[in-house]
Amino acid sequence: MSAIIVTAAMLAIGDELLSGRTKDKNIGHLADFLTLKAIDLKEVRIVSDEQDAIVSALNELRKNYTYVFTSGGIGPTHDDITADAVAVAMGVKIEHDARAMKLLGDYYKMRKIEFTPARQRMARIPVGADLIDNSISVAPGFTIKNVHVMAGVPSVFQAMLDSLEPNLVSGIQMLSKAIDSTFPEGTIGGPLADIQKNHPNTSIGSYPKFEKDKYSTQIVIRARKQDYLDNAVNDVNLMFKQLINSKNALEHKHDPGT
Amino acid sequence: MSAIIVTAAMLAIGDELLSGRTKDKNIGHLADFLTLKAIDLKEVRIVSDEQDAIVSALNELRKNYTYVFTSGGIGPTHDDITADAVAVAMGVKIEHDARAMKLLGDYYKMRKIEFTPARQRMARIPVGADLIDNSISVAPGFTIKNVHVMAGVPSVFQAMLDSLEPNLVSGIQMLSKAIDSTFPEGTIGGPLADIQKNHPNTSIGSYPKFEKDKYSTQIVIRARKQDYLDNAVNDVNLMFKQLINSKNALEHKHDPGT
Repeated sequence: MSAIIVTAAMLAIGDELLSGRTKDKNIGHLADFLTLKAIDLKEVRIVSDEQDAIVSALNELRKNYTYVFTSGGIGPTHDDITADAVAVAMGVKIEHDARAMKLLGDYYKMRKIEFTPARQRMARIPVGADLIDNSISVAPGFTIKNVHVMAGVPSVFQAMLDSLEPNLVSGIQMLSKAIDSTFPEGTIGGPLADIQKNHPNTSIGSYPKFEKDKYSTQIVIRARKQDYLDNAVNDVNLMFKQLINSKNALEHKHDPGT
Repeated sequence: MSAIIVTAAMLAIGDELLSGRTKDKNIGHLADFLTLKAIDLKEVRIVSDEQDAIVSALNELRKNYTYVFTSGGIGPTHDDITADAVAVAMGVKIEHDARAMKLLGDYYKMRKIEFTPARQRMARIPVGADLIDNSISVAPGFTIKNVHVMAGVPSVFQAMLDSLEPNLVSGIQMLSKAIDSTFPEGTIGGPLADIQKNHPNTSIGSYPKFEKDKYSTQIVIRARKQDYLDNAVNDVNLMFKQLINSKNALEHKHDPGT
């Protein structure tokens, strides 16, 4: 399946991300995953484990984008409130889901672990949702309308995303070309702005590095058609040639020996 | 200076964060910094280099929190549009700021580098803003009302945050205690929920790990008064003692030799 432009937002949930105790690893992973899938990640939010914060962020995001992906807050403890918050946002009930109860019941029976009320909490799923497989620790995520609810533990988040993958609609692939340069941004800023103006169907980004007291710049040109991309890349390469020539000419002029 | 509760939001700006090309390092750093400063980071957003996206996120966040910290988009190239977007959000003009022009002019003169129009772009600051020192690469950030606008390059972001630090109002320090346990969340979820109910002035978080096919859990108890913290910590320790005793009793019962 493919559509022209498919957009997404991510909602990462958890006090531990906001206190700095846990450094998020899911945003970068989802960004890479969606880029490969030609889905445009347009916005990310991180909110605390508070129902109002989750509900209001979710209701804004699910209205504005094709998909919303959430991470965190679907475990067995009292501070895992994502499933309840999603049910509130969607205006549906939440219940112990028969499919999830069977999955978890069988799993704990096999491992000879008590299926405590806390563990049964992980089977509470908003009514009408589809389950997302979890090959790591069995407790499922779920999809309801355009919202995909997943775990916060990175290995589980990634496993859930992989089981979700075949169900996601792709966009038209964004083509891109990165060009590294030793010129600092301050030198190329002027001509690069002109190139962007002349190539409105491309998006040209400039990413400075500052390492060991040296500036360098990576230019990334992005477009959805090869022609658009190639034409802009040619102009960027031409700009660099001209800058190198003028630098050489300048050095020549300043060399009193020649 | 200290107030009871001081809140903050972060707005990270840049297409490169959403495409996965760059993995953000500023969110985690700001989270740690604010925790030490007893400022509660309540929300983080990442948006693309689009004026509407920046303006609308900024206007929501600056209304809801004591401070907003932004990262990214204040360099010399055409895709650096943060300063302009902040001016639009604030409803003020943006101009080549005399202080910033002098700072940058002197710096480039000293380094014998041409002060190009692109470099002068970094001196464009919304009218009424205070500058934020940048000990790494000179080009300043700025503060306007409750919004602190900083660079995206991590070393520069961190330097700007350090120069900003004395101007920030602190809250009352959040005290916290982490307790590691080998019990999985599914075992402690029930009693832990009761402890949270009995200690409403604390916030008790449960953070599962899953490594080498083994579950473990870290419990983090947070409170703004030592008494509240100590009482909840005692109850959590008591819970673990009881769980260990009942586990031993269970193993004893199952041992046919005794």
